[in-house]
Amino acid sequence: MRPILAGQPRLAAVARALFDPRSIAVVGASDEPGKWGALLADLALRGAHRRAVYLVNPGRATVQGRPAYRALGDLPESPELVVLSVPSDRLEQVVIEALEVEARVLVAIAAGLGERSRDGAEVERRLAARVRAHGAALLGPNCMGVFDASSALDLAPWFAPAASLPAGELDIVSQSGNLGSDIARLAWDAGLGVRRFLSVGNQADIDAADALEVLAADDETRIIGLYIEDFREGRRFAAAAREAGRRGQLVFLLTVGRQAAAAAARSHTGSVVSDSRVVDAVCAMSGIVRVTSPTELVELAMLCRARTPLGGRRLAIISDGGGHGVVAAEQAEHHGLTVPALPADVEQKVRERAPSAATIANPVDLVAASRDPMVFRDVAALLLASGRFDAVLVSGNLGGFSTLNPHPDVAAAEMAAAERLAGLGRVVWVQSIFADGPVARRLRSHGVPVTRDGALAIRAIAALAARAEALASDLDDPVKAAAPELGDLGYLDARAAAESLGITVPEARPASSAAEAVAAARDLGFPVALKTLAASHKTDAGGIALGLAEPADVERAHAAIAARLGPRVVVERMVNEAGVELIVGARRDPRFGPVAAVGLGGRLVEILDDVAVAIAPLSEARAEALIRSLRAAPFLLGARGRPPLDVGAAARALTLVAAALVSSPAVAELEINPLLVTRAGAIALDVRAVPVTQEGDHDGPQADPSSS
Amino acid sequence: MRPILAGQPRLAAVARALFDPRSIAVVGASDEPGKWGALLADLALRGAHRRAVYLVNPGRATVQGRPAYRALGDLPESPELVVLSVPSDRLEQVVIEALEVEARVLVAIAAGLGERSRDGAEVERRLAARVRAHGAALLGPNCMGVFDASSALDLAPWFAPAASLPAGELDIVSQSGNLGSDIARLAWDAGLGVRRFLSVGNQADIDAADALEVLAADDETRIIGLYIEDFREGRRFAAAAREAGRRGQLVFLLTVGRQAAAAAARSHTGSVVSDSRVVDAVCAMSGIVRVTSPTELVELAMLCRARTPLGGRRLAIISDGGGHGVVAAEQAEHHGLTVPALPADVEQKVRERAPSAATIANPVDLVAASRDPMVFRDVAALLLASGRFDAVLVSGNLGGFSTLNPHPDVAAAEMAAAERLAGLGRVVWVQSIFADGPVARRLRSHGVPVTRDGALAIRAIAALAARAEALASDLDDPVKAAAPELGDLGYLDARAAAESLGITVPEARPASSAAEAVAAARDLGFPVALKTLAASHKTDAGGIALGLAEPADVERAHAAIAARLGPRVVVERMVNEAGVELIVGARRDPRFGPVAAVGLGGRLVEILDDVAVAIAPLSEARAEALIRSLRAAPFLLGARGRPPLDVGAAARALTLVAAALVSSPAVAELEINPLLVTRAGAIALDVRAVPVTQEGDHDGPQADPSSS
Repeated sequence: MRPILAGQPRLAAVARALFDPRSIAVVGASDEPGKWGALLADLALRGAHRRAVYLVNPGRATVQGRPAYRALGDLPESPELVVLSVPSDRLEQVVIEALEVEARVLVAIAAGLGERSRDGAEVERRLAARVRAHGAALLGPNCMGVFDASSALDLAPWFAPAASLPAGELDIVSQSGNLGSDIARLAWDAGLGVRRFLSVGNQADIDAADALEVLAADDETRIIGLYIEDFREGRRFAAAAREAGRRGQLVFLLTVGRQAAAAAARSHTGSVVSDSRVVDAVCAMSGIVRVTSPTELVELAMLCRARTPLGGRRLAIISDGGGHGVVAAEQAEHHGLTVPALPADVEQKVRERAPSAATIANPVDLVAASRDPMVFRDVAALLLASGRFDAVLVSGNLGGFSTLNPHPDVAAAEMAAAERLAGLGRVVWVQSIFADGPVARRLRSHGVPVTRDGALAIRAIAALAARAEALASDLDDPVKAAAPELGDLGYLDARAAAESLGITVPEARPASSAAEAVAAARDLGFPVALKTLAASHKTDAGGIALGLAEPADVERAHAAIAARLGPRVVVERMVNEAGVELIVGARRDPRFGPVAAVGLGGRLVEILDDVAVAIAPLSEARAEALIRSLRAAPFLLGARGRPPLDVGAAARALTLVAAALVSSPAVAELEINPLLVTRAGAIALDVRAVPVTQEGDHDGPQADPSSS
Repeated sequence: MRPILAGQPRLAAVARALFDPRSIAVVGASDEPGKWGALLADLALRGAHRRAVYLVNPGRATVQGRPAYRALGDLPESPELVVLSVPSDRLEQVVIEALEVEARVLVAIAAGLGERSRDGAEVERRLAARVRAHGAALLGPNCMGVFDASSALDLAPWFAPAASLPAGELDIVSQSGNLGSDIARLAWDAGLGVRRFLSVGNQADIDAADALEVLAADDETRIIGLYIEDFREGRRFAAAAREAGRRGQLVFLLTVGRQAAAAAARSHTGSVVSDSRVVDAVCAMSGIVRVTSPTELVELAMLCRARTPLGGRRLAIISDGGGHGVVAAEQAEHHGLTVPALPADVEQKVRERAPSAATIANPVDLVAASRDPMVFRDVAALLLASGRFDAVLVSGNLGGFSTLNPHPDVAAAEMAAAERLAGLGRVVWVQSIFADGPVARRLRSHGVPVTRDGALAIRAIAALAARAEALASDLDDPVKAAAPELGDLGYLDARAAAESLGITVPEARPASSAAEAVAAARDLGFPVALKTLAASHKTDAGGIALGLAEPADVERAHAAIAARLGPRVVVERMVNEAGVELIVGARRDPRFGPVAAVGLGGRLVEILDDVAVAIAPLSEARAEALIRSLRAAPFLLGARGRPPLDVGAAARALTLVAAALVSSPAVAELEINPLLVTRAGAIALDVRAVPVTQEGDHDGPQADPSSS
């Protein structure tokens, strides 16, 4: 698994051949309307002014009125890019031929391999290995091709059948061809346009991380829209997304993680779908904006594109009528923005400028302002100058005053106000009932996002704020730990491992008989706990007895445990300190590798689903932020007069567990449950380690995410 | 407060005069462009072919080229509807004049009264009383008028300035004029259109409930869109919404409830904003669809309008390419729909009909189906015939096959498939990349909703399913209880009240000294609890001691409590049974009156915010459903091998507390915290009653929702 910071993109050597090949061969080129071979040949020929295009068909002398070649070996030159429009059962042979003529990039359209069967997946693995051995790259199979507007390259057959397309701003990487083309059409309709399109299909060779890396490294890239079901090399993907963000590019992600959707994705492309919370953790780390539909992706891209970065979450709202301001404030709070009150001096200045009927608060309600639209700009300027707000939303009728009020001066005044408002910079958004009018167009031409739907503007502002926080956060100082000794991964092993990491555990003695247990208890001091060494889920197996206050209790408990699980137990000193129990653990996501998780301990964590997740290893600062993000955090921080507990010690334990998993490849899962967090420290009351099993192998595409 | 089932609308007597007056007078009619008096006169005159229109201006002989009247008393007849376009300080005088000439409906535009000051609110109260005494009705003040397309009545000055408007389907009731006109413009743009528009402004007389009642009673009403900040007579509002739903009308509600928004609403119209959870409870009871923006309101209305009612939440998804199906399944689960697997026999039938490359599951992925679009219809028919699904979503390229595939037969086949798909009835939705094409138009002409955004279709289906559940649920058998005796509302009173309702409480004895307490403890049996009778928040005040096992413990505890809170305590037998603690209570919403609430007990409820709310009184069935809806419900229902607890007893306690509050007007809040729910029963371990205070008055517009 690659480190979290990206280096040279794996595709760097073939990037030009992928997006702007000097020559193309279409294998399976056809004349029959509606056939992919015909569509692809037609599309390829549209770029014939820029590059050589060869049509290959073993059974025909001409295709689309041009001479056809019988085989790739007959071409007069080595084609840089070969499109393989052949059925899946012929794919392997044609790949071999393409590599023999030294093609650099192969685009395989056919479905029916890896998404269909294990045999198909095996074919894909062979193909990919062969392609890589030649220093070439393979897109697909089960894909819808590639498109680059700037180089007149269009090999996306269901994508843009009508005509050549203007270059746009959005780069699309999609595992589903249809979803990718859906996003593309929305982008064209919205005026955003498409620059590049990569349909990665089954990702046999080129995967989402490769695609993202090569786009992030391109100075021309502005906005990237992704539809991904299976993140494959998830670490490299996350690193590439962060690199893109660091370079000022916006990354939007549509993905799936719920149960029915994950099952459907598996049958659709053989995808291994990661837990939705892990994907959220990756987004929170990499500055990715996660969306729920193609429509939302394109709408947010339109509202975010000229608007990065954002300094914080403090929103000022200005409206001309209370309703819009109220609804915007509601939405802002829902999406995690704050709507802070105006400081007294700012309130005074705004009051002096605003109409007398205005409500001077946040939202500012300027009431009917149609006669003096410059008041929007002036009030926005006052609010921004205060330094108390990170963004301004103007909501209501601005852009339509000249429609509403026929007074001849209104139109000119409104246009002038729009110009000046735009001059306030990259922190202004406008929601307008008249979002299609001339004033709105003028605002847009100056880069001000104008939307009909205020909820969408709020969502965009919140997304940019979250993105800025993600990119500003530390990733550079994760806690590291050497792999602890873990032999058979029993309780004593796991307990000792925790201790060796520096995590406090209660004093304990092993015992193999009731007499030994009593002796150990006397040694440790009563009360004690007895725990079987035979079962990993001790509580469920009835292998645990707590609060044993005297020798007879110990004897009785030992007899009960021994009868069912054998005599080997550990005797532990009971911890009597008050505190809150957390569950602190690390496990392996099938695609993103080690992840750390923390939640309120005991049964609560499972029932209330109050868990926070981050990619491991992680820094103490991130671990502490994670703990503080729990709904249950007030329990730890001192709610209702309770003493605040040692969150730092809990965070430290989380980082150590995560680091230990990272450095222990044989361990699938390491968990402290409960970790008792007290006023000064944290004690691991139970520790569990789960070995990696054959099924838990997380590198192959057959790995089942439910097994780890 | 009115009962929950609506009777005759209060506005019935003036409804015709409001929506189709025989005569109108515009007081304050003007010639000056941009003035409301000019706009209103112009708008009123557009209906002059249907009704008499009188322009009143004391200073002019003519207005808009027509003779003007000096005063209402000079008119040749009694005007049915009078528009008052006068400043707020002249409003009262003109209202008096309008009532003297026996006007039935008064429309007051002016802002600056109730939303501005207590004096203004007092003026409004006087006006409303005067109007009601005359059997008339007043719209506003601080409103944007009224519109009815079917009667050529347009008195909404910022609403439709351009031209006369075609009649549409949406009825709009809005507290904010701008928000209402925003919704109206969206409805026109979407082709939904507007039928009626009522801007209720400060609701001095006609309020949201009046408006909703009169619309619900109208056979022509189809879809109602509401923007309401202050629900005024909330019970009547809820009843009217349920009546509308029962009559097959769709009701959409945009409102606010979060902190900043509520504060803004208060300053904007003096609104009293209800807790957002209470509003959700009203929606869940009345079948209202709650939305978050004007855009969502209109988009959902478009997708729901031909589609009621829906029998359940089981969705079948059919796509042509995996991505759309996967994303739809993700969205469906997010919005509470289920995506059930296909039964084996249905799977077999679908497999026989579908292309060989198809994935036969739910979602069904038909892969490229462009050559045989009838497969969509046939598969949908098979799925629906199974009786296992309540709705079908077709997602992907349907509607664009003829664009994607130039084969001459495709266009005709696709249109035929669309026709047949529409024939499957009112449970089919279509998401299409080609939602604007001819096939989509054909589908729409048959009433099939087609959307570009699949997430929106899912949201619409989920909203209709929730609405159907709400309207099917019982409201008719709420538990009733006589008002218990509640004297000074101290702990003993509250405890006795619970007992008199039939709720179990632990045995107890009052005591005023350590000796009395010890005697009481001996009487009850150790261990016992001691609770002060001096403070209502006993735990916070340190006035409670639990688990006292012997006389010395009782003496010590009494000394500690007596030193700080006086000697009067109650001694209670400690309950030793295992169980789960709930908080069970009822309080008064300032607008919706008594509401019942239940959550996990202790500090958990406040920190984890796991609370369910319903309007009181309520039936045991609803109370139990409420408890089962808690995230923490598995604790009660027997998670991980624990015994299931007596949820019925808990539900019964909730209904009794709610019924007691309903019948005790002097009590603001009644709460059992904790209610210990055991395997066979539920015991109230602490009971608290809070009296209604002056500030807690919940009928006046100045009531502060935070106080109750």
